[in-house]
Amino acid sequence: MKMSNPVFEFFKSQIGREVTAAAPPFTQWLRGTFRKVEEGSMTMEFVVRHEMLNPAGLLHGGVQNAMIDDVMGMTVAALGTETTFVSLNLSVDHLGKSREGDRVLATSRVVRRGKTVVNIECELTDLEGKLLARGTANYIRTELPAFRPLG
Amino acid sequence: MKMSNPVFEFFKSQIGREVTAAAPPFTQWLRGTFRKVEEGSMTMEFVVRHEMLNPAGLLHGGVQNAMIDDVMGMTVAALGTETTFVSLNLSVDHLGKSREGDRVLATSRVVRRGKTVVNIECELTDLEGKLLARGTANYIRTELPAFRPLG
Amino acid sequence: MKMSNPVFEFFKSQIGREVTAAAPPFTQWLRGTFRKVEEGSMTMEFVVRHEMLNPAGLLHGGVQNAMIDDVMGMTVAALGTETTFVSLNLSVDHLGKSREGDRVLATSRVVRRGKTVVNIECELTDLEGKLLARGTANYIRTELPAFRPLG
Amino acid sequence: MKMSNPVFEFFKSQIGREVTAAAPPFTQWLRGTFRKVEEGSMTMEFVVRHEMLNPAGLLHGGVQNAMIDDVMGMTVAALGTETTFVSLNLSVDHLGKSREGDRVLATSRVVRRGKTVVNIECELTDLEGKLLARGTANYIRTELPAFRPLG
Repeated sequence: MKMSNPVFEFFKSQIGREVTAAAPPFTQWLRGTFRKVEEGSMTMEFVVRHEMLNPAGLLHGGVQNAMIDDVMGMTVAALGTETTFVSLNLSVDHLGKSREGDRVLATSRVVRRGKTVVNIECELTDLEGKLLARGTANYIRTELPAFRPLG
Repeated sequence: MKMSNPVFEFFKSQIGREVTAAAPPFTQWLRGTFRKVEEGSMTMEFVVRHEMLNPAGLLHGGVQNAMIDDVMGMTVAALGTETTFVSLNLSVDHLGKSREGDRVLATSRVVRRGKTVVNIECELTDLEGKLLARGTANYIRTELPAFRPLG
Repeated sequence: MKMSNPVFEFFKSQIGREVTAAAPPFTQWLRGTFRKVEEGSMTMEFVVRHEMLNPAGLLHGGVQNAMIDDVMGMTVAALGTETTFVSLNLSVDHLGKSREGDRVLATSRVVRRGKTVVNIECELTDLEGKLLARGTANYIRTELPAFRPLG
Repeated sequence: MKMSNPVFEFFKSQIGREVTAAAPPFTQWLRGTFRKVEEGSMTMEFVVRHEMLNPAGLLHGGVQNAMIDDVMGMTVAALGTETTFVSLNLSVDHLGKSREGDRVLATSRVVRRGKTVVNIECELTDLEGKLLARGTANYIRTELPAFRPLG
């Protein structure tokens, strides 16, 4: 079965581009670039900016978590569910480090798509695939209508 | 035993104030205000700004995680360890929601302070104490000298 | 509001007693004794038996997780929900150790009771309250009728 | 680099066999059979016995966690580290169910092997590869001499 829904199609049309002013506010702040959009999987590329740093001058763990969370949320939104799914929990392991100016890739993968729960993972790596962080989350169905991008 | 070290004393001196330009870059972006600084526990207050929102217009889960992570990191830094401890993992449950303009409190508590691992939790609540999110993390000892705030 | 339902009443009636042959098979294997049964909170006491040990002769981490999981499940069952809630995820931190013959207490607490998700924590301690492990879990509503103890 | 150490060699020699009376007590209780032993990865097969069931007659979530934890511990032990590594935390997602008599496979994979921390995952599946549960853990270095199997 080929996935087709407005969110998925819109994300696919954005490959190679940065998120636009139509993106949610914090997604704009992360300023990712669409690299891959597939069924149940996406890759966004981020540039580590100065304001994303921790006391050691490295990419802040909290920003790593936020990148993972945001790409997971986009991936779930692109599944074409009738109602919105929201993040119930997130578990992240920090495995490496990244510096200002570095580019990092967040690659998600839906592990299990159920009717009420979507289990998903996301890896944060450098451009060579070296792991920076790895997260797993459960998204749960709500009664809210699904988010539709304005494009 | 009364805790006393430069980070702890500095944080205590900041109660009632917003983080300054001497704070790490992402900590500045979060723009928290010190509300409580005790041995193994801190409370920071944050205002939900527009750029912190998700597609539903609510405080982004990723920003919640980042607030929790940042306050945990500050709390561990204030323990006065000789070397830096870094976040190894974080597990967060999302339990409520918050809107633009809302003020949220992140309150940390060290659960166990070991020689090589500090286990810590942090609750994100509204001003009435209603839970928005709750996280637990392990911080691990490195050989890097401990962070010292410039003040 | 005073909690009252058959599971809760049954568990309350068992305070001071070991689980019986009417308990689920693995709950019987854990062989806990009811110590406290309150609204959204329970304490079970377990004795560390030889078959629960790891290679170091300490209480196996996996058995710690299982004790936490089982007491959480009983606590959720005692909430009196119309349908069964099942464990969606569990996050555990290991904080101490226990030896053969030691008695350990597993004390649960419902953090948030929602219509579709119950968030719950459980601490495993020795009799003096020293932490051995600490877990947090989300239980999710199913359509299966709620479990009723046979007594 | 080819892995070679007494634990790894011993586990490899056991492929196709059940754990023996030389195994740690709880590992004996789980009664797994060695199916695959590779560098940083193992597969153990378990049979769901009656005493492993929950109130619904399914494989108890706590036993799932214990299987995952035990196979992770064996995999870390087989890395040939000079001192013992112990489980610091475990995060598990429950994704399916299993019944009495079913056979389940626990397959581990070391994600990152550091000097002080080993990050590892483990999937629990049925014989066709359908996911029952999935866990991630961090194991931390202690000063205790490494476990040596007696054979």
